[in-house]
Amino acid sequence: MMRCVNNPLVTAKDVKSSRPDFRVEGIFNCGVCRYQDEILLVCRVSESAGFTDQKVNIPVMVPDGDRMTMDVIEVVKKEHPEWNFSDSRSITKETPSGRKIVYLTSFSHLRLARSKDGIRFTVDDAPMIPPAMKEESWGMEDPRVVKIEDTYYINYTAVSPLGPATALLSTKDFQQFKRHGIIFTPENKDVVIFPKKIGGSYYALNRPVSQEFGSPEMWISESPDLIHWGNHRHFCGVSGKSWENGRIGGGAVPFLTEKGWIEFYHAADSDNRYCIGAMLLDARHPEKILARTEKPVLQPETDYETSGFFGNAVFTCGCCQNGDTIMLYYGAADDKICRADITLEEIFHALNI
Amino acid sequence: MMRCVNNPLVTAKDVKSSRPDFRVEGIFNCGVCRYQDEILLVCRVSESAGFTDQKVNIPVMVPDGDRMTMDVIEVVKKEHPEWNFSDSRSITKETPSGRKIVYLTSFSHLRLARSKDGIRFTVDDAPMIPPAMKEESWGMEDPRVVKIEDTYYINYTAVSPLGPATALLSTKDFQQFKRHGIIFTPENKDVVIFPKKIGGSYYALNRPVSQEFGSPEMWISESPDLIHWGNHRHFCGVSGKSWENGRIGGGAVPFLTEKGWIEFYHAADSDNRYCIGAMLLDARHPEKILARTEKPVLQPETDYETSGFFGNAVFTCGCCQNGDTIMLYYGAADDKICRADITLEEIFHALNI
Repeated sequence: MMRCVNNPLVTAKDVKSSRPDFRVEGIFNCGVCRYQDEILLVCRVSESAGFTDQKVNIPVMVPDGDRMTMDVIEVVKKEHPEWNFSDSRSITKETPSGRKIVYLTSFSHLRLARSKDGIRFTVDDAPMIPPAMKEESWGMEDPRVVKIEDTYYINYTAVSPLGPATALLSTKDFQQFKRHGIIFTPENKDVVIFPKKIGGSYYALNRPVSQEFGSPEMWISESPDLIHWGNHRHFCGVSGKSWENGRIGGGAVPFLTEKGWIEFYHAADSDNRYCIGAMLLDARHPEKILARTEKPVLQPETDYETSGFFGNAVFTCGCCQNGDTIMLYYGAADDKICRADITLEEIFHALNI
Repeated sequence: MMRCVNNPLVTAKDVKSSRPDFRVEGIFNCGVCRYQDEILLVCRVSESAGFTDQKVNIPVMVPDGDRMTMDVIEVVKKEHPEWNFSDSRSITKETPSGRKIVYLTSFSHLRLARSKDGIRFTVDDAPMIPPAMKEESWGMEDPRVVKIEDTYYINYTAVSPLGPATALLSTKDFQQFKRHGIIFTPENKDVVIFPKKIGGSYYALNRPVSQEFGSPEMWISESPDLIHWGNHRHFCGVSGKSWENGRIGGGAVPFLTEKGWIEFYHAADSDNRYCIGAMLLDARHPEKILARTEKPVLQPETDYETSGFFGNAVFTCGCCQNGDTIMLYYGAADDKICRADITLEEIFHALNI
């Protein structure tokens, strides 16, 4: 794996805020595709509404008749001594059923970035599409893009006080979008959809979480139409390895090679250090894992990966094939977009196949 | 609401254990349907594998080649000082992400009970169908039965260390069953499927749970084929009322009246006292709630409801219409099956319509 010397490729300072009173905290975790003669990134942009040592302004969408509009809630810390403000990402409180999120500190939306060379990107001035459902009233996160025939499908985490769910959009031109609603109920995110039907069904990896049971792990599901999903099966669990003993979930959209499907997935340890691993899945039976990397193919090592909005995190939502080389785009420390390249030969070697 | 004077109608002593070394702890939460000239209950039967003050035997299914077979794990309490044995239903431990279930103390399977008069039931000697998937290796719970055309669909909670999910079976004769796998990923249970297509789609209420967000609440989803589900939307939340401020979820399979769909749902307060409420949904747009009862239509009051395996619980999975009267079957204290009757007029009155 070779990190791009231009890393980080895109950072918060390259992004215009969506409102004058908002501050862009990061641009990271992006879906990737080729569109016309460009590489398009569908990025997660997170914005805060301002905070001091004494208070935090919380951006949320609220119902306004049939529509949703952005509102800002002011939280004065000393008025909530029972709330925990130590995590940069959320305010939490302890309840009889465990630690619960009261608010997220930032609001994420989806934004396009475009490049001819895959290195120098221009970020659009405005969000790609606004939040529209109450199920995404706390934001739209971690998009993945998969091209199926002539349509680009974009699935993303729809976040709200109801929990993180997964929603689906589609577009042919990145101008007009069709909304397909929630495709996986909370708590389920890190969904990656395979780019074609396999044996008559579409397939997706997903990552349900159970409140009282087990660890967050990967499942595989089938669909006739990409909108309705069933035949859900447990697919892959956390391993005993120290880098992936906490949680595991989908990363990049899988791509087919002569040896089978390659999936770059994310894994975190109990300290929430996020790495990227790879697995090989059977071409015709993607529920069969043929190989899995012993070690991460990428782990937080550079300054831009270890330090940021949420440090010690590398997290991919997509990659792009260029001959025998895979260009893996990834979020670093939850605030920047980076790229690392790996050849198919290297991937197969890491998988010991 | 009139409680049947013969309550409880079915108790553990009416049930033959599935193995000589197992003890039937309860028969409760049953799906209900008419089949030929009988009322059939698809019951949840829970069995323990024996326990003393010092140890608990835990029944679980384990993989055995391509099949699953029952095994018993002996847990010696003093060897696990960090585990909590105080809940009759499960052994838990505290983790950084809250209280997690280590084991369930009993294993539930599905069992048929048959009656000509709806009061005197005979329980089959053997389980209706054995657990078969690793996703149900800790049991099959809380079945609902819905008849659609000439087929009976039975959805139930598939429990495993992976979390509670919802699975689907179908049958035409209660002898041959077809398995349709998991239809809702963990954590999602209390699924009730509407008995016919509405505007071209099948509908189901379901109850996803998010680890770090909000309360367990009801969602509504659509399907073209009962197997693949999508267009998931939040449907109904907990209210400020004291009897339903903890959690809320589907109960009986909805039935259509002249005023719309009636759904008997369950609600619990923060002390886990389970009541039954009712709501009226629009006939053509079941996502629209037209009315909801201010007070429970049934709450734990009698000895057989307040005392048992898990006391202070009434919980319905199904009802049966008999002219203008609804025969509501319900689990009492997680170990007995009871019945209470209510007329449509009473329901409408309770709904203030």
